[in-house]
Formats: sequence, structure tokens, C-alpha cells
Amino acid sequence: MENQAMQEPLVYRRVLLTVDEDDNTSSERAFRYATTLARDYAVHLGICSVLESEDINIFDSLTPSKLQEKRRHVEQVVADYVKLAEANGVEHVEPLVYEGGDVDDVILEQVIPDFKPDLLVTGADTQFAHSKISGAIGPRLAKKAPVSVIVVR
Amino acid sequence: MENQAMQEPLVYRRVLLTVDEDDNTSSERAFRYATTLARDYAVHLGICSVLESEDINIFDSLTPSKLQEKRRHVEQVVADYVKLAEANGVEHVEPLVYEGGDVDDVILEQVIPDFKPDLLVTGADTQFAHSKISGAIGPRLAKKAPVSVIVVR
Repeated sequence: MENQAMQEPLVYRRVLLTVDEDDNTSSERAFRYATTLARDYAVHLGICSVLESEDINIFDSLTPSKLQEKRRHVEQVVADYVKLAEANGVEHVEPLVYEGGDVDDVILEQVIPDFKPDLLVTGADTQFAHSKISGAIGPRLAKKAPVSVIVVR
Repeated sequence: MENQAMQEPLVYRRVLLTVDEDDNTSSERAFRYATTLARDYAVHLGICSVLESEDINIFDSLTPSKLQEKRRHVEQVVADYVKLAEANGVEHVEPLVYEGGDVDDVILEQVIPDFKPDLLVTGADTQFAHSKISGAIGPRLAKKAPVSVIVVR
């Protein structure tokens, strides 16, 4: 091993936190970890949620007004997290609200290329109700994302 | 969400780094992240490797002297990482060398209960040559471990 390189500190400079609408314990801890890191190292924090606008079941598909309502709700959830992060002392926080058919794909193909995080922070129980694949998104992203991923418990 | 709780910083106090014998880029970065964190927050760092003493193929099974040689090699690899971590300014570093049939099981059933980490750090490409399950251990541990897991790329 090259000792020189190994002695360089490794600090993430762009942290992306994914949040869903539910406030479970792991989401809360993921938020606390992301804000602690972003504040202590003065780095950029993006807080991201995905509105699943394309439901799998056509009978569940949303009317434009229902979709608009849902969109406003997700925007509000993210805005609340942003405010709280700023209250926690994070200087650079960015709300990121996306829409799409599958949360994993949206994060991998849109949010990551746009925000260019070097660390993705997600709660172990963070999941999206209408995702094509059930279960928490963290371990899946830990496998598939091109950047570092922390699954917070 | 309860704003009071959300404002508490979240700092990991016992960090467990898994290393294999190969020095790939993600292992190097995992080491750098673990030592940066352990130094900056003055927390305990365990550096762990697992010697797979039970090979699946009986024809590959090791003679006692070969096993002893392999054991010494793994101990040396971990000791080198410990020295390097201390050189990086980490005060409390502990070498952890285990043996067993399957790396995932050994980490989940022995190392974690013994060391009691609250964060497990692993490189995205960290894998063990003789593991029953092929591929990197990070995403699997991110799913199965009872503590937070960061997969470093």
C-alpha cells in the first residue's frame, strides 16, 4: 500500500440526503448524521425527495389536482428539512424535488448526475410507498450508486 | 417530526473498518475515511480482517503450517493498517483478526457483538477471495448489519 496516499484525509464535499414522507427513526438519524457532517466540515448538503408520479396500477393514477396536491406536500416536506438543517448550522443546503416512475432510477439517473454528490446518506428504513421494488432503498443504492453510500440505523 | 431530537448531532463513537488483503482503491478510500472520522471526532477505531480457515473445496484445505502462515499474513496486514492509522493521528486503534467459514457470518455474529461498533466502514470492492458468496461484502452488510454501514467508493 502506498503510505503517502493513505495519509490523506478523506472528507466528503457534497452530501446528498434522501428523505421520504415518513418520519421513522432511521430517517431522523440519517438527517442528523448528514447535518452533523455538513456542518462540521462546512460542505454542501442536498436534501432530496422523489414524487412518484407514475403509478404502476393504472386505476391508482392521479388526477392533475391530486398530483399537484401531492407535489406541494413533497415540496413542503423537503422545505421543512432544509429549514431544520439551516437551524442546525448547515450553511449550504439545497432542496431537490424530483418526479418519476421509480425512485431508484430517478436518484441514479437524474439526482446524482445533477447534484454530483460524493456521499449519499439514507436511512435504513427509508422507502417509497409506490416504488416498483419494495423495501428500503439504502442497500440497493449502496450496491448500484457510483458514489459512496451510508445506510444509517 | 420532533424538532428537538432532529437538532442533536449524530457522531459515531465506535467505528469498525473491514479490510481484506488486497489494496484496491476503494479499500484505500475506506481506510482514509475511517481514519479521518476517528481522528477528527477522537473516537475508537477497530480494524478487522477475517481469515477464512474453512475452505469450501476439501481439496484446497490447508495444512496446519500453511494455515499458520496465512494467519500470520492476515495479522501482519491488520497490524500495518493499525500503525498507519496511528500515524494518521488516531489515538485508539484496535486490531481485530478473526477466523471462520464465512466472512459475512463472522462479521455479523462475532466481530460486531464483540467490538460493538455503531458504524461499519467498508470499501465498495472489499471482498474475500474464499467467501461462499461472491462479490463485495459492503452492500450485503448494509442490508444485514444491525448498525450503520458506509460503502466507500
